[in-house]
Amino acid sequence: MLLRIDHVGIACRDLEEKIAFYQATFGVTVVSREVNQEQGVKEAMLHVADGEGGGSYIQLLEPLGPDTPVGRFLARRGEGLHHVAYGVSDIEGALAAIGGTGVRLLDERPRHGAMGSSIAFLHPKDVGGVLTELVEAPPRPL
Amino acid sequence: MLLRIDHVGIACRDLEEKIAFYQATFGVTVVSREVNQEQGVKEAMLHVADGEGGGSYIQLLEPLGPDTPVGRFLARRGEGLHHVAYGVSDIEGALAAIGGTGVRLLDERPRHGAMGSSIAFLHPKDVGGVLTELVEAPPRPL
Repeated sequence: MLLRIDHVGIACRDLEEKIAFYQATFGVTVVSREVNQEQGVKEAMLHVADGEGGGSYIQLLEPLGPDTPVGRFLARRGEGLHHVAYGVSDIEGALAAIGGTGVRLLDERPRHGAMGSSIAFLHPKDVGGVLTELVEAPPRPL
Repeated sequence: MLLRIDHVGIACRDLEEKIAFYQATFGVTVVSREVNQEQGVKEAMLHVADGEGGGSYIQLLEPLGPDTPVGRFLARRGEGLHHVAYGVSDIEGALAAIGGTGVRLLDERPRHGAMGSSIAFLHPKDVGGVLTELVEAPPRPL
């Protein structure tokens, strides 16, 4: 079911400062910046590798305010690893299969993620404390 | 410098229970189990994908006791994401380059990791709260 580690999501207080750090330290480059009002974040995707069905990225997340999921995470835990996302080829099929095992879905249906992807989150309490995301990359151009 | 997301490290209280969960929920299979006395953990690697220079895995970590790094992590934060590891082709060169930027190295020299790899950790306080590991996979058999 899982094709790749699509990304690790990292919560930070200052997106631009952290982008500059990752570029200077690890040589990774930004391939996308987005503001996601629905999720209350500014985010950037830094490319690590290409893989089956899509790439692997470091996703840096800065909250749009304190009363957002990432804002509350920062207040509680400070900066650091926020979630992990796995690539799948068929996100609706994967959600049905995983939901069928009893894991609660935070998103019953996929919604829009970075770079045209479809994403859905699983309940961290049902995945051993790990906020887990599924990602189906958009079809590649022919 | 970074070739792939080598693995996400996940701290858990019961390795065998969590392996069974990941197998049943995500269809991933165990490719390695090890006891690492030096790090105070029992660990399992579950295969997600193949990539440049090595694979991508979910690493499940159960502490050998409460007075170990992962044991203290569990007491402080509970089960969940513990670290992220990136694959590199030349770990000594990568450590020299990263150390040269001012990031403190928890391991000045590589040590033995899972499945014959060479690994080293960077100080999380210098990487935005993220415990970050570098992994050089062993040479593949000819």
